[in-house]
Amino acid sequence: MLISCPDRVGIIAAVSEFLHKHGANIIHSDQHAIEREDGIFFMRITFQLDDLEEKQVFLCDQFQQVAEKFAMEWKISLSSQKKKVALFVSKYDHCLQELLWRWRIGELDAEIKMVISNHMDCQPLVEPYGLPYYHIPVTKEIREEAALEQLKYLKKEEIDTIILARYMQIIPKRMIDVFPNQIINIHHSFLPAFVGANPYERAFERGVKLIGATAHYVTEELDEGPIIEQDVHRVSHRHRPEDLIRIGSEVERIVLARAVKWHVNDQVLVHGNKTIVFPG
Amino acid sequence: MLISCPDRVGIIAAVSEFLHKHGANIIHSDQHAIEREDGIFFMRITFQLDDLEEKQVFLCDQFQQVAEKFAMEWKISLSSQKKKVALFVSKYDHCLQELLWRWRIGELDAEIKMVISNHMDCQPLVEPYGLPYYHIPVTKEIREEAALEQLKYLKKEEIDTIILARYMQIIPKRMIDVFPNQIINIHHSFLPAFVGANPYERAFERGVKLIGATAHYVTEELDEGPIIEQDVHRVSHRHRPEDLIRIGSEVERIVLARAVKWHVNDQVLVHGNKTIVFPG
Amino acid sequence: MLISCPDRVGIIAAVSEFLHKHGANIIHSDQHAIEREDGIFFMRITFQLDDLEEKQVFLCDQFQQVAEKFAMEWKISLSSQKKKVALFVSKYDHCLQELLWRWRIGELDAEIKMVISNHMDCQPLVEPYGLPYYHIPVTKEIREEAALEQLKYLKKEEIDTIILARYMQIIPKRMIDVFPNQIINIHHSFLPAFVGANPYERAFERGVKLIGATAHYVTEELDEGPIIEQDVHRVSHRHRPEDLIRIGSEVERIVLARAVKWHVNDQVLVHGNKTIVFPG
Amino acid sequence: MLISCPDRVGIIAAVSEFLHKHGANIIHSDQHAIEREDGIFFMRITFQLDDLEEKQVFLCDQFQQVAEKFAMEWKISLSSQKKKVALFVSKYDHCLQELLWRWRIGELDAEIKMVISNHMDCQPLVEPYGLPYYHIPVTKEIREEAALEQLKYLKKEEIDTIILARYMQIIPKRMIDVFPNQIINIHHSFLPAFVGANPYERAFERGVKLIGATAHYVTEELDEGPIIEQDVHRVSHRHRPEDLIRIGSEVERIVLARAVKWHVNDQVLVHGNKTIVFPG
Repeated sequence: MLISCPDRVGIIAAVSEFLHKHGANIIHSDQHAIEREDGIFFMRITFQLDDLEEKQVFLCDQFQQVAEKFAMEWKISLSSQKKKVALFVSKYDHCLQELLWRWRIGELDAEIKMVISNHMDCQPLVEPYGLPYYHIPVTKEIREEAALEQLKYLKKEEIDTIILARYMQIIPKRMIDVFPNQIINIHHSFLPAFVGANPYERAFERGVKLIGATAHYVTEELDEGPIIEQDVHRVSHRHRPEDLIRIGSEVERIVLARAVKWHVNDQVLVHGNKTIVFPG
Repeated sequence: MLISCPDRVGIIAAVSEFLHKHGANIIHSDQHAIEREDGIFFMRITFQLDDLEEKQVFLCDQFQQVAEKFAMEWKISLSSQKKKVALFVSKYDHCLQELLWRWRIGELDAEIKMVISNHMDCQPLVEPYGLPYYHIPVTKEIREEAALEQLKYLKKEEIDTIILARYMQIIPKRMIDVFPNQIINIHHSFLPAFVGANPYERAFERGVKLIGATAHYVTEELDEGPIIEQDVHRVSHRHRPEDLIRIGSEVERIVLARAVKWHVNDQVLVHGNKTIVFPG
Repeated sequence: MLISCPDRVGIIAAVSEFLHKHGANIIHSDQHAIEREDGIFFMRITFQLDDLEEKQVFLCDQFQQVAEKFAMEWKISLSSQKKKVALFVSKYDHCLQELLWRWRIGELDAEIKMVISNHMDCQPLVEPYGLPYYHIPVTKEIREEAALEQLKYLKKEEIDTIILARYMQIIPKRMIDVFPNQIINIHHSFLPAFVGANPYERAFERGVKLIGATAHYVTEELDEGPIIEQDVHRVSHRHRPEDLIRIGSEVERIVLARAVKWHVNDQVLVHGNKTIVFPG
Repeated sequence: MLISCPDRVGIIAAVSEFLHKHGANIIHSDQHAIEREDGIFFMRITFQLDDLEEKQVFLCDQFQQVAEKFAMEWKISLSSQKKKVALFVSKYDHCLQELLWRWRIGELDAEIKMVISNHMDCQPLVEPYGLPYYHIPVTKEIREEAALEQLKYLKKEEIDTIILARYMQIIPKRMIDVFPNQIINIHHSFLPAFVGANPYERAFERGVKLIGATAHYVTEELDEGPIIEQDVHRVSHRHRPEDLIRIGSEVERIVLARAVKWHVNDQVLVHGNKTIVFPG
C-alpha cells in the first residue's frame, strides 16, 4: 500500500488502526515526511492478509473513508499481481542480458512480456528466454509511426512498465503520456553531468576521476526526469574512452537492475522531480 | 521511543493509536521483525509532543498498559536529555580528534564530559575543548584498581556511554557489567578477520586487498561484541604496514564517528549478538 | 615480460637498454621492490616489436645473459599467445555466466576451451557458446579418479589456467601440483574472515555490516592461497541469509571477473603467499 | 624526476641508462603514454643517490643532453626540498582542520607557512599550530588590492603552492598567472555537475543519489581546471540540504587531503586540462 497526502497528525494511527481492524498483519511500514514548503507525507506499508484477492474491492471501498479524511492519494498492490514489463533495446546488450538473467533466477518479481528493438542484433540473446522480439526500426522521420506500432504491442499485453535497456532513441511525448513515471531509462553518466550524447567521450575529455550511470524515469525533458539510482566507478589517466565504455557498462547494468527491482516491487514514489525509494 | 517484543498482530496500530490519543505527532517510525526462530519485533518511533518533559511520567505510566499487553521492553528518550559520554584514549589521537571535532561543530548530539587516558600524550589536544583529562595509568597488574578509579569519575558525572577511541587496554568485567551495550570500541580490522593484536601487520602478512575497521559494543569476549558499523579501504602490494596504519586510521575515525552518532541518537538496538541500526 | 630478482642497482637500465638495442618500443613498464627482509625486485614490461613471434627464440637466448647477471626469473608472453582456460562449475551459475559473457564481448583476452562440472545443471547455459561441457561427477571417495579424468581433458587441450567459478569440491594435491598458481578460486567471503563452509550463514550469525568475496590462487591449504582481488557490499539487519547470498553473488562475479582478467593478461605475479597486481 | 616529451622509441632506456651511469638507484619508475593525436610520453622516476644535493647542478647539466635529444620538459625535485604551502580559508574550517592535522602527524610532506583568510573565524583553530594567520578582507570591489597584499606575504615566504581549503572568493587572474597549476581548490560537487554556487542546494533540488567533491587546479575558467581527485557519498530522500552539507564536508576533506598529498609529493603532472596522477 502506497500513500501520499498532506502531512497531518494521526495519519499513521488511522491507517494502522484500519488495517488492524480488518485483520491485516503489518510486516513493514516506512514513512517519509517532507517538511519544507508544502508538508507532504509519504507512506509504504507491506501487510499480510488472508484471502486479500477476494477482499480487495471491499477493503478499498472501506479505506476510501480514511483516505478522504486525509486527502490521500493511495493504491494497494497485491504481490501476486506482478508488473508487466517490456524491455526496449538497441545494439548494446549488457543491460538486457543483466535484466534477463536476474529475471530468470527469480530476482526480478515481474512478468517480462516482450523485447522491442530497432535492430535485430539482440535477437539471439533473447531467443533462449522464449520471449517475443519485436523488431521495429526507428528513424527521426518515422518516430511517431514507430511509437504507434510499439503501443499496439504494449497495449495487447497490458504492459505497465517500460525499461529502456540502452535504447538509443528519443521517446516521443505520445508514449510518455501513456506511461507517466513508468518508463525507466539508464543514462551512461552521473547526471546532471554529461546530459545528452556521448557522455563517456566527454568524461574522457574533462578528465574526471569517477564515471557513473543514472537510472531515471523518462519525462519530456531529455535526461531530466526523477532519478531512481546512481553509482560510480573509479577511473584514471590510464583509461582511454574505450575503457570508460567497458567499465561504465558494469555500472550501468548494476544501477539499472537495482532501479527496476525497486520499481517492480512498488518501492519507488515520485514527488515532483524526485523519487522516494523505500527500503525493501 | 524504542520497543522490542514478541511479534504479534496489532503492535503498530496499538502504539500509534496510543500516541495519537495523547496528541503526539509521529515524525518517523521504523520497524524490524525477525521472522526466524523466535519472531521478535523491534520499533523506533520519533514523535513530537508539546511539554513532553512535564508529561513524561504520566505518559510512561499510561503506556505501561499497552506494553504489558504485548510484553514489551521499551523506553522513551527525550531529545533534550542528551547522553553523557566519556572518551577513553591511549596514545593514538586520530579517533579522539575526529570525535571532538564533530562534537564541536554540533554533529554529535551528546554531552562529552571527560577524557580518560592511561597516557599524557593526548592532553594538549583535549585542552582547548575545556574538558577534564584524567590520567589513570593501567598495567595488567593494576587493571582492577584502575577500573575502580575510572568508575569513580564516571559515576560522579553520571556517564552512560563510554567510547574507546583507540584505548589499548582490556576492559575488565567489572566495568562491562556497569555499562552493558554502552561501551563502544573501534577495532582496526574488518571483524571477524584479525581478531586481537596487530591486525594491520597481520593484514599485510596475509596480503589482503582491502583493510577495514569495526565499531562494536564491548562484551566479555574480546572483539566479539555486537557490530555497529564497518567499512573498508582499498590497498595494494605497494603499501607497507605503515601505510596500512595510515590508511586504516582514516577508516577507523569515520567508522567510529558514525557508530557513536547512531548510539547517542538512540538509533541502535541490540538483540543477542547483533545490532539493529535504524535510519536517522 | 615478467621479471623477478634480488633487488640491485641497474636492473631497469639493463633491461630497457637491452630492449632498446633490439628495436623494441616499451609501452608500459611497472616495477615493485620489496624492501623488507630479502629485497626483491619485480618488473612487468609491455613492449611492441615487429615480427616478435619469429624473433622470440633469438631474443630469449640473448636476454639470458642479462638475466644471469641479475639472477632473474623471467618470461616473455606474446599477446598473440592467449592463455588456454578451463572453467569448473557446480550448480551456481552466476560466475560462469559472467565469465562467458565477458569473454564473448572480448573483454577476457583468453581462449576458453571447456567447462567441467560435477553436475549437469549449467549445461544449457554453456551450450549456446559452443564449448564442450564435460560432466564428471565427484564424491569424496572418487576425488582422485575424477581428478585423473579431468586432467585427461585438460592435457588434451593444453590448458594452462583453471577457473573455479563456484566449483564446490576440494581440489586434490595432484591437480594443484600440475597447475601451481594457475588455479583461481572465488571464495564467498572477505578472507580471512569465514574460511571454509557456509560463509554467508556465518556472516549473518555474526551480524557483519559488509559482506565480501575473495579471488585467490588455490594452494593445498584451503582458502589460504595468495589473494588476487577482494571486494565488499553493504548489508544491514534487514537482510536475511538468502539476501546475503543474492547480494554476495553480485560481488563474487565482479571480483572473479577482475581476477581472471588480470591473470590472463599476465598482470599478476606471486611472491610467497601474496600477489603483486600490476596495472593493465 | 618528472619528464614529459613527444613519445619516441628509447626514452626509458636513455633515462635509466643515464641514471645508472651516475650511480643512482631507481626506486620507482612510472610511465604513461597518450597514444591519441599527439603521442605524448610522461614519466616519473624516484631514485636514490648519495650527496644528491651537491651533485644536483652537475647532474642537471649533464642530463640536458639527454633532454634535448628527446625534446623533454623535465625537472628534478629533491625529497629534502619540501614545497612551501599557504592555506586560504574563509569560514568553514573542516578542510583546514583536516590538512593541519595530517600535516602535524607527518602525512603531508610539505612546509605549511601561513594561513590567509578573509575572516577571523578560523584564527583560534590555527593558533595552536604556531602558524601566522593573515586576515585580509576581500570584497568584489577590492579583490585586486587584496590579491596584491596576499602576494606580498606569499612572496616573502617563497610560497609555491596555494590550497583553497573552502576559500569562498574568486581568485583573480593576477594570482593565477603567478601560480600556474599550483593553486588547488576543493569544489563541493562532483564536477562537471553543479559548477558554481550552492552545489548542495542544487543537488538537493535535482534529487541526486550521490553527492561528491572535486579537487582541481585553479584556472581562469571557474571550476573548469584540471581535476586531481574526486569522490562521492551516498544520500537518500531522507537527507535535507543541511544533511548534504554535513555528509559532503566529509568527502571534501578526504578528497582535498589526497590531492594535496599527491601534489606536494610531485605525483601530479598536468597535460592540457587533465592530470596524470602517478602512484606514490
